[in-house]
Amino acid sequence: MAHEHYLYESISEQLRQHIRTGSYSAGERLPSVRQLSQLFSVSVNTVVQCFRQLEADGYIEIRPRSGVFVHATPPGQPPSSNILSFPLLPVEVSLSEDILHFMEPHVEEDLVRLGIALPACDIMPIDRVMRTLREVTRNHARQAWDYCHPHGLEAFTHQLSHRSLKYPAPIKHGDIVVTNGAMEAIELALRTVTRRGDTVAVETPTYYGSLVALDVLRRRALEIPTHGRDGLCLYSLEQAFKRGQVAACLMSANAQNPLGFCMPEARKQRLVELASHYDIPIIENDVWGDTCFAGDSLPAKAWDQEGLVIYCSSFSKTLMPGMRLGWVAPGRFHKRLRELKQISSITTASAPQLVMARLLESGFYARHLERLRQELAQQSNAMSQAVAASFPPGTHITQPAGGCALWIGLPQHIDSRLLFTQAINERIHIFPGNVFSAGPRHFNYLRLNTGQPVDSNVKQAVYRLGELAGQLSTH
Amino acid sequence: MAHEHYLYESISEQLRQHIRTGSYSAGERLPSVRQLSQLFSVSVNTVVQCFRQLEADGYIEIRPRSGVFVHATPPGQPPSSNILSFPLLPVEVSLSEDILHFMEPHVEEDLVRLGIALPACDIMPIDRVMRTLREVTRNHARQAWDYCHPHGLEAFTHQLSHRSLKYPAPIKHGDIVVTNGAMEAIELALRTVTRRGDTVAVETPTYYGSLVALDVLRRRALEIPTHGRDGLCLYSLEQAFKRGQVAACLMSANAQNPLGFCMPEARKQRLVELASHYDIPIIENDVWGDTCFAGDSLPAKAWDQEGLVIYCSSFSKTLMPGMRLGWVAPGRFHKRLRELKQISSITTASAPQLVMARLLESGFYARHLERLRQELAQQSNAMSQAVAASFPPGTHITQPAGGCALWIGLPQHIDSRLLFTQAINERIHIFPGNVFSAGPRHFNYLRLNTGQPVDSNVKQAVYRLGELAGQLSTH
Repeated sequence: MAHEHYLYESISEQLRQHIRTGSYSAGERLPSVRQLSQLFSVSVNTVVQCFRQLEADGYIEIRPRSGVFVHATPPGQPPSSNILSFPLLPVEVSLSEDILHFMEPHVEEDLVRLGIALPACDIMPIDRVMRTLREVTRNHARQAWDYCHPHGLEAFTHQLSHRSLKYPAPIKHGDIVVTNGAMEAIELALRTVTRRGDTVAVETPTYYGSLVALDVLRRRALEIPTHGRDGLCLYSLEQAFKRGQVAACLMSANAQNPLGFCMPEARKQRLVELASHYDIPIIENDVWGDTCFAGDSLPAKAWDQEGLVIYCSSFSKTLMPGMRLGWVAPGRFHKRLRELKQISSITTASAPQLVMARLLESGFYARHLERLRQELAQQSNAMSQAVAASFPPGTHITQPAGGCALWIGLPQHIDSRLLFTQAINERIHIFPGNVFSAGPRHFNYLRLNTGQPVDSNVKQAVYRLGELAGQLSTH
Repeated sequence: MAHEHYLYESISEQLRQHIRTGSYSAGERLPSVRQLSQLFSVSVNTVVQCFRQLEADGYIEIRPRSGVFVHATPPGQPPSSNILSFPLLPVEVSLSEDILHFMEPHVEEDLVRLGIALPACDIMPIDRVMRTLREVTRNHARQAWDYCHPHGLEAFTHQLSHRSLKYPAPIKHGDIVVTNGAMEAIELALRTVTRRGDTVAVETPTYYGSLVALDVLRRRALEIPTHGRDGLCLYSLEQAFKRGQVAACLMSANAQNPLGFCMPEARKQRLVELASHYDIPIIENDVWGDTCFAGDSLPAKAWDQEGLVIYCSSFSKTLMPGMRLGWVAPGRFHKRLRELKQISSITTASAPQLVMARLLESGFYARHLERLRQELAQQSNAMSQAVAASFPPGTHITQPAGGCALWIGLPQHIDSRLLFTQAINERIHIFPGNVFSAGPRHFNYLRLNTGQPVDSNVKQAVYRLGELAGQLSTH
């Protein structure tokens, strides 16, 4: 096993070398699995594992029934060390305590908040939201006072459905169930399509909240290699689907947390095709979807003709987390999910829905998004530069296409949990990489929140982090 | 079986006759189970079932290790026909569709709202709540904007814990988890202490929302006979505990919906003792607890030294349903329930908690409750008189000690679902009795909402209901 593992790594590295040095150039076809297995005297499985790895790393493209080709734009930098081994084995998730430990400092005062990924309230239109809330308490007091319809407020769900008009498969307002934030949406989705003990495919690295949900609901996680630019490795996902290993897949197509990628449209479509072909539901967490720097980016749900994608979103990241307003478009699972919602909280509060309906209808939210995306892109860029200037050699940084997280790989021997502890002592809050996986992965990674303007205070903190990492790197 | 059932009914009725006519007077000891089984030539089980029935009807008191005695104040009116047979068999719950059907008219306009039990907004301090909400948006905008601590806002949970200072076992603020209304609290509680397929003891009649929750979560219900004045039959409950039939008990001790009783304190204590003795958790739904006409009434939780009572409450019935603000004190199940809460909605919205913290701290809520209780008592009384004046002979009406529901028994052959349909045609919304049970029970009952002032409009509707019931009664 260890030997085979070693072999697989070394062959992958050899193939990468061939591609990097141009022995195989962009678009060129690689030898077949059988040929390579003979060439290297390894099993077919080992070669398949290599291909999966190379696909995840962005070196190759696997075209079903055509063969394996060098990617049109293979990555220049070395692949992220975090996705070296993917046994595709479901694992029990049990890191809730761990995550609570790493989250705790967030509520403390006088902290440089590079931990929780969230746009700072300084760049949010709090006054406008609060003013709208005051208007609602004046002009719609009775409606705000009473129970809302279990599906949600029609004025609000109408506005939500309008936003999907350009989808190939638009979301009708009757398809929507309003929830207390996206987390309730995801949890209802998981309970709708999976049962205790089931396995769910997730990205790695993935949002730790998803892993906590799996842990608490006693579901297992099957981690699928995920590329920093292209997202979920569809080849690996299909293997898991084909083998009947998973009951659902929980993923993000846009501004994924923590990697920040937006999947190319063709890959989103392919994902939905896979779901349909194998009849396995996709739970799409699109909570960061509105923050793609380049502008509106369709979710995978946009191509969901057959209702297999349960789309979850909220306004927590783009407007106001304390509002706790999310929504879900559960496709063909609508009835069961609505039942679960109705008993879990009857209805969602009315006032926030009245507020959001107004902010959407007036066009304010769309205008706000334009500003927000610009600011987030700038901040991401500034943070990236600050990191590049202060971190030790061997550090590599993702180039996010949205969101407010920066995923940073340190030299392999550094354990970022150590950096977390040292940073907290200096009142800097960061998230270590290991909480983004249920397995023993991403230890040398960390995630930085780029939600606030990169002022001198933040720059100083990043500089100090770089120093600490530098010290760890020379030990 | 049918024969035994018949025997049991006839013997119960004979014993009731003896008590009513004074052959056995108040406080007198009845013959033992063995003596009665010989006397009537029936099995010991049949006699036990009779006793259980008579206890539920309020005719007798069972004192462990002392014997069976005639109740100090046996009921004058005939027992409610709905609790004639209690096989104590768990049943699958499947009435969600039914209930949605009966709830639907609530959202329609121009309806006399005697269906959903809820104080009308006319008797609620909407202006004050909305004003406080505006203050919060002005003076605590940042706090309202951000995520709240997963447990809830400390200023709010402190106020909640203060309310329990007079309990023999007070609730500490750290014991509390804030939720999106009491329904989320109950659902989290059910998921914390029971699993799919488990059986939960419930009152009959009970709040239909509890039954829907059991249905959706795939739990089974074991209905326990429940007395209109004394509540849950503790003898039957203990039988179920003893036989290991149930994983938990879901009940209300104060102003129960739909019966309106407040359990005597001694019985609340005894309930908690049973839970401790058999190590079976009680989920106490105290959502109506603040509406007891006679003033503050302790919940069963007040005696919960061992943390076996999961206490659930909210402000939906006493202040504002649209706020969706509830809370749970999960006792020894705190950790698991908090985990489930955190993944189901991360945290509860901040603004409503800021509002309630203020309204509690200033004493406004306490003053409001005094007014509210008076109004609800008056309305209940007025509604009761209106029903007595217009319904056919053979109708009997509960005398609620709190809440805003009136539970009305029609002559036995009337099916209140028919009355529901006829009433809706005349724009009057009522709830038929059968939805308050998972079994085939309470068909000749109905529940009326007494949440609004009994004005001429309401009186006319009640009068018309009485006419319709009269017509059904003579058919």
